[in-house]
Amino acid sequence: MSRVRIGVLGCGNVGAPLFQLISEQRDAIEARTGIRLEVTRVAVRNLSLERPVTLPEGVLTRDAHAVVSDPDVDLVVEVIGGIEPARELILEALKNGKPVVTANKELLANVGAEVFAAAEAAGRDLLFEAAVAGGIPLIRPLRESLVGEPITRVMGIVNGTTNYILTRMTEQGAEYGDALAEAQSLGYAERDPTADVEGFDAGAKAAIIATIAFGVRVVAGDVYHEGISNITASDIDAATRLGYVVKLLAIAERFDDGSVAVRVHPAMVPRNHPLASVRESFNAVFIEGEAVGSLMFYGRGAGGRPTASAVLGDIIDAALNLRQGTAASIGHFDRARIRPIDETSAEYYLPLEVLDRPGVLAAVAGVFAKHGVSIRNAEQVGLGDDASLVFITHTAQEAAIRATLHELRGLDSVRRVGGLLRVVGN
Amino acid sequence: MSRVRIGVLGCGNVGAPLFQLISEQRDAIEARTGIRLEVTRVAVRNLSLERPVTLPEGVLTRDAHAVVSDPDVDLVVEVIGGIEPARELILEALKNGKPVVTANKELLANVGAEVFAAAEAAGRDLLFEAAVAGGIPLIRPLRESLVGEPITRVMGIVNGTTNYILTRMTEQGAEYGDALAEAQSLGYAERDPTADVEGFDAGAKAAIIATIAFGVRVVAGDVYHEGISNITASDIDAATRLGYVVKLLAIAERFDDGSVAVRVHPAMVPRNHPLASVRESFNAVFIEGEAVGSLMFYGRGAGGRPTASAVLGDIIDAALNLRQGTAASIGHFDRARIRPIDETSAEYYLPLEVLDRPGVLAAVAGVFAKHGVSIRNAEQVGLGDDASLVFITHTAQEAAIRATLHELRGLDSVRRVGGLLRVVGN
Repeated sequence: MSRVRIGVLGCGNVGAPLFQLISEQRDAIEARTGIRLEVTRVAVRNLSLERPVTLPEGVLTRDAHAVVSDPDVDLVVEVIGGIEPARELILEALKNGKPVVTANKELLANVGAEVFAAAEAAGRDLLFEAAVAGGIPLIRPLRESLVGEPITRVMGIVNGTTNYILTRMTEQGAEYGDALAEAQSLGYAERDPTADVEGFDAGAKAAIIATIAFGVRVVAGDVYHEGISNITASDIDAATRLGYVVKLLAIAERFDDGSVAVRVHPAMVPRNHPLASVRESFNAVFIEGEAVGSLMFYGRGAGGRPTASAVLGDIIDAALNLRQGTAASIGHFDRARIRPIDETSAEYYLPLEVLDRPGVLAAVAGVFAKHGVSIRNAEQVGLGDDASLVFITHTAQEAAIRATLHELRGLDSVRRVGGLLRVVGN
Repeated sequence: MSRVRIGVLGCGNVGAPLFQLISEQRDAIEARTGIRLEVTRVAVRNLSLERPVTLPEGVLTRDAHAVVSDPDVDLVVEVIGGIEPARELILEALKNGKPVVTANKELLANVGAEVFAAAEAAGRDLLFEAAVAGGIPLIRPLRESLVGEPITRVMGIVNGTTNYILTRMTEQGAEYGDALAEAQSLGYAERDPTADVEGFDAGAKAAIIATIAFGVRVVAGDVYHEGISNITASDIDAATRLGYVVKLLAIAERFDDGSVAVRVHPAMVPRNHPLASVRESFNAVFIEGEAVGSLMFYGRGAGGRPTASAVLGDIIDAALNLRQGTAASIGHFDRARIRPIDETSAEYYLPLEVLDRPGVLAAVAGVFAKHGVSIRNAEQVGLGDDASLVFITHTAQEAAIRATLHELRGLDSVRRVGGLLRVVGN
């Protein structure tokens, strides 16, 4: 069986360039793998919509269920997104013995366990390289190359929109609102940017990364998140002055007791850390392992053609396995204890607006000390009524920092407690 | 068959940490994959040598041939390096039906075609993630994730020693000789550093990368190379002033006519290019594809444990295939036309020491013009007898640049033509 017939669910942002890419690369792929790919069915919601690609007669259909049960479809690609009907269609395809390639992060981050189990039961591939970090090969290296590697932490810039905004703020000194508006005008950010800027999109990806990197079951709801909408030009300014770059990071950590912590929040990254040089809408995932040391994977995290490239890699993989009558086992994922944010540790950057009078620093420092938080760096910025104090702590537990913040807010001499930023990667 | 018995050839820099890593990770690997790894034979040259690991009774042997033909060995790992006897042992193992994992770049860059064909004929895995860029997952993403991607260019920092030296020169302003001596005292560079600093090591890796990225047969002897021993502190200085960082790059390009060019040389990389931020002894490989755009893989390119981590990933992959009775086909590699360096193009940085008299710039510019090389940037540095001119050209063909250089050397007003540097990644 060297001809593999593909049924595609969806023909939008990813489906259309995928169809095009397969047409362009068909002969080269056959020459290298002996497999000839053919897209035989494409299910869409609206038959009369204009598309950037011309599909052969008889390929387009409105009946997605007919595609996943078509005996003339060997392999199903799901690029419609969202949980339903994608979940139902994928389960049906697997039950019909068809390997599935999907780019659907919402589905995997929410009901991944169900579709993983269905793939395992069917003995068929379920591949999803494109669901996290678009065109960057990340899931396959994690599942295969690093399956024997004791990974301790993964930190990713996995949302291009927020990285674009933060890059503009850092390099042009833009305020958040202006950078967001620019991102919207360029089509990098949606009209309602909530999913991106509040960290929901990155959170879903973090759940999938944690699941695959640590072999435990993590869902989107387990992920703590803070967005970037409170970051100010003055935070960025302070970060630059102190030798850091502000990035929205998705962080998954595994602890010796087997528990994991998964979170998304803006962080100050040292300027010479590899993640600091990831600019514009690029994505990157930084992996720390006990044996391998530090690794980073960098590339386009979104966009039709990069994502289609990742889907195509999965299609070829699944097609080769289909020909050999095998499938890559995805394994079994147990629930792990999810460590709440209060139990995680970091260094913290904290700006305070204070009254300009004697004894203020002593009072503030006393609050830190009371909660066992030690200060690595304290600096006064500005003078008189504009004076503010900027602190960076040594590694402290989040719970202690929150207690410190709470008490600082109650001090007479503190006019305002600014946004907290975690310092990561030192 | 969930127990996989491993025979290891060599117990040095990589073999010893590999044995240790397998011991540490055995249970975790079994839990995730169902496969229990056991090192049953280890062949070494000298039985009485002290080793950092304690091997069980009866595992060590001096007879490597006995290991590759032992019916109680399911899988062979070759970490002795060099072409012979590694080649002979690998061929014997494959003929005996045993998959092989190797970290041997010399072997693959010189007689890769022979061992690839032997693996293909035997229907057994031949995996070699560790042969290029140490612990960085690169070969598997290229072979699998990107097999359908039209890759146009790969640029790698694949030699840690030279990257360490160049980092020292860039960040501390060190001269080449001092930076080399420091690298030697830290054990990053060998007493005879030729293989590293003249680009031979990077050249072997470039040949393997080109082979896998483009699916054509390239050997070490096809690779053009220049090293870093002529780079001066003043070159580095000029690069910094102009917004560049000097890196030793291994570059593999594929052209529309199917020919490929593979070369190693120092290059000026724009400061905000991802490769520019790869510091110290880290490695990184930057990939450009028509669909996926830019990708970069970053990590530890050498060192016992990172390399052992890559070997372990391959072992697990081969063991899973063995259990399923399959193997990953490596495909067939035809010879491609190797485009000589004269036919490649780049922008060029060229410093000239000139006499301080009227008409010099006109004379020099006339030589560039005569050979069709257009100048993007010209700048005079210093005054009087210390004056030098620094040029950066627009994209030009190497042959034209060489002709230009030849003629410039003959001009009365040119006292010295400095080292040429290619500008890459603009």
